[in-house]
Order: sequence, then structure tokens, then C-alpha cells
Amino acid sequence: MTITTVGLDADDTLWHNETIFRLTHGRFVDLLDEHGDRETIEARLAEVERRNLRLYGYGVKGFTLSMIETAMELCDGGAPPEVVREILAAGREMLAHPVETLPSVDETLAALAERYRLVLITKGDLLDQERKLAASGLGDLFAAVEIVSEKDSGTYTRVFDRHGTGSAEAVMAGNSMKSDVLPAIEAGAWAVHIPYVVTWAHELADAPEGHPRYGTLDTIADLPAWIAARADQA
Amino acid sequence: MTITTVGLDADDTLWHNETIFRLTHGRFVDLLDEHGDRETIEARLAEVERRNLRLYGYGVKGFTLSMIETAMELCDGGAPPEVVREILAAGREMLAHPVETLPSVDETLAALAERYRLVLITKGDLLDQERKLAASGLGDLFAAVEIVSEKDSGTYTRVFDRHGTGSAEAVMAGNSMKSDVLPAIEAGAWAVHIPYVVTWAHELADAPEGHPRYGTLDTIADLPAWIAARADQA
Repeated sequence: MTITTVGLDADDTLWHNETIFRLTHGRFVDLLDEHGDRETIEARLAEVERRNLRLYGYGVKGFTLSMIETAMELCDGGAPPEVVREILAAGREMLAHPVETLPSVDETLAALAERYRLVLITKGDLLDQERKLAASGLGDLFAAVEIVSEKDSGTYTRVFDRHGTGSAEAVMAGNSMKSDVLPAIEAGAWAVHIPYVVTWAHELADAPEGHPRYGTLDTIADLPAWIAARADQA
Repeated sequence: MTITTVGLDADDTLWHNETIFRLTHGRFVDLLDEHGDRETIEARLAEVERRNLRLYGYGVKGFTLSMIETAMELCDGGAPPEVVREILAAGREMLAHPVETLPSVDETLAALAERYRLVLITKGDLLDQERKLAASGLGDLFAAVEIVSEKDSGTYTRVFDRHGTGSAEAVMAGNSMKSDVLPAIEAGAWAVHIPYVVTWAHELADAPEGHPRYGTLDTIADLPAWIAARADQA
């Protein structure tokens, strides 16, 4: 087989993200601890997020709005001003949070960029994702950056046609089974799952175990060898 | 001269947008009328928006967060829950608002698409702009869609290189002097200002009067003739 193009997810694949969301979740739960236990608060927030996804899409701004809405629902008579102020501050802090790349990312991407066309494919708020890419120092390694509103098979077909030589010669690597692996395989690409320590509830899905174009790796450091091994089989 | 590519702004160029923001502004002022007169409230909201632009970027979600923050500042002791709920509802309604194309847009774009490559170039929330384009029914007329976090000269150079034959053979048309006209001209493209009935305060700028690649039109219906007349001069 020939691989010309490597698609890479950003959040929780190249740099920490969900941990920052979890920290904010923790702060949110503490803020509302008089109005419910952790499970109740988390469940309600997840429900509000799911309900709003169709309108807000992905990213910190929608998450902040969903936190405010959840607080309004959980507090008798609505959330007091200090709670809303705290949530606004938490959202702004997330948007200004330093970007910390995951172990081995810098050197692995540098190695991959010598052999393949790298395309960053990510969901989230446009400006926030651009900021994080700039702050990561990885921007120059990518031939293209696609910030998309949804990652379905059509997205991967379009992106790999536009920036590569089609899905059949592309590998997608990321931490989300639901967004990075399954739709990329459906589009005809290869897909590698690189789990992060935690996964957002909305990104969970079953692995396509045994699929010939699927792989799973503990670390991105093993990605170049994984691709090379498959190329050698051809 | 040769023109191969026509860039088009979306909000207030192809469909109504600022009027919907103004309606929401009105609703916001009414909501806070015990806490200040219209001018004070509007001035404070503009200040908060400007302060947040660096973190939130453009679009309805950031605007909603800025309204909540402004309400917190204007109300003694912070905004009461019913105000916050109203603002959240107003934001959601903006995101679900029907898309109404401006007069002559449909037939003009259809005519332009027969002769030029059309590229939609817009700021705002990713999902919201995609939703509006889909709802407008204009999506198939565009060879490419670029939802960007900022419209500066680098943006236009990149977009017209990627989707056309470079800035020198491209026309950008839009309602914002600051975002659509000035940076496009700086990038070496032609630019046509088509004013909308109202302009967001952050988009105001002086016209490049007398510039050889600049024009202004009352209606998008005159754009094909404007381009054709310049092409004839070559």
C-alpha cells in the first residue's frame, strides 16, 4: 500500500484538552455543591450539552453557555450572579490556557512530516483551535489545517481528496473512536486509535476490532513504524 | 484584466444578519432598562465585546457570552437569573433564526457562477455559518467555502491562491469596508463595497476613495456588470 497523507486530530491527540475540561467540570461541581451531588450535576451538564450541540457545535464557548444554562436549572430560582461570573471566568481561562503538547508529539510529527503530507483535522471553536495550533509551535509541520464542524465520513473524503491523494492513501490518527477512527475507516482511509487518559462522554464508541485498516497504539511515537509496517506489506 | 474568482462575504452581503443582532440588542436594552439608558447599555456592551474579541472571536456564541457579562456589570449585585435566562434564549434564537437572502442575491450568484469561481469568505461561528449557507440554498454555487477567524490581507492572499488564480485575478465583494474591502485591496485583489442598511460598530472604516481597484455598488445585482466593465478595459 501507499500512504501519502496523515490526518491528525488535535485535542487530546497532540496536546492536552479534556483534562482542562475536567478541571473546569470539577470547578463547576464545587460551585454548585449545595444544589446536588457530583453525579447529578455532571449528568445534567451532559444532558444540556447534548441538547445544545446542534446549535452550539463543539468548543469552549458553547461549553461555557451550557454550564450557565445548567446552573440556571440546578439552582432553585436560578443561579446567583456570583456563580454566573465564576463560570464566565472559567470559560475565559480555558480559552487562554497554555498549550502543552503530549509526550513524543514534537519529534514524531517532525519525522512524519518528512515522509507524508500532514493535515490537522479538528473540531472546536475556530479561533481557539488556531490559537492552540500557533501556541503549540507545530503549525509549520502541517500542509493543511481543517477546522470542521463535524467529523463524519464525508468530512474525511473531502479533506483527503482536497489535501492528499484520496482516503485510500491516507491514515487518520486520533484519540476519539467515534470522530477520528470510525468515520475515517468508513471513508476508506486507514485509522489509528491513540487513546488519551480520559474521553469525553460524547466521543465514546466501540472499536472496529479486526478491521484490516484499523490499529491502536499506546503512544503517537509508534505511529511512523505502524504506517511503515503496513506500507512494507504491499 | 482577467477575473477568474469572485470572493463573497456572507452576513449582510448575501443574507440579513446585522438586523437580527440589532433586534437582539433592542431586546437586551429593554431587559436592562432599569439599569441604564440605551446609550449607556449599548456602549458597555460594545466595550465588553471589544475586550472579548481576542478570546471569543466573531459570532453569536461570543456575543451571547458578552451580553451576559455586560448584564453582570450593569446590574447592581449582578444580573438576576431571569435576565441571564432571557439572554441565553435570545442567543439560541439567533442561532436558529431563518435565513433570508437579500434582494437579487439568488439570480446574481447564479449568473456569476457561470463565469467565475465563487468563494464564500466569512467570519463567525463555524457551525452557524455552515447552517446559514445550507439554509440559504446557495451552497452549490460556491466552488469553496472559507470560514475564517479574521479577514486580513494574508487571509485573502491565502484563499485566492488556494481556490483561484491569485489575488490579482480576484474580486472581493462585501458590506464591510474594514473586513471585505481594505484587506482585499491590500492583498492585490479588486474590491467592491456593497453597503448594508446598518453596519456593526467594529466594522466601520474609511473608503479607499479613488483607488483603481475599488468600487461601490448599491446592490449586488450590479456586480456582474461592474466586473465585466473592468474586464473590457483590459
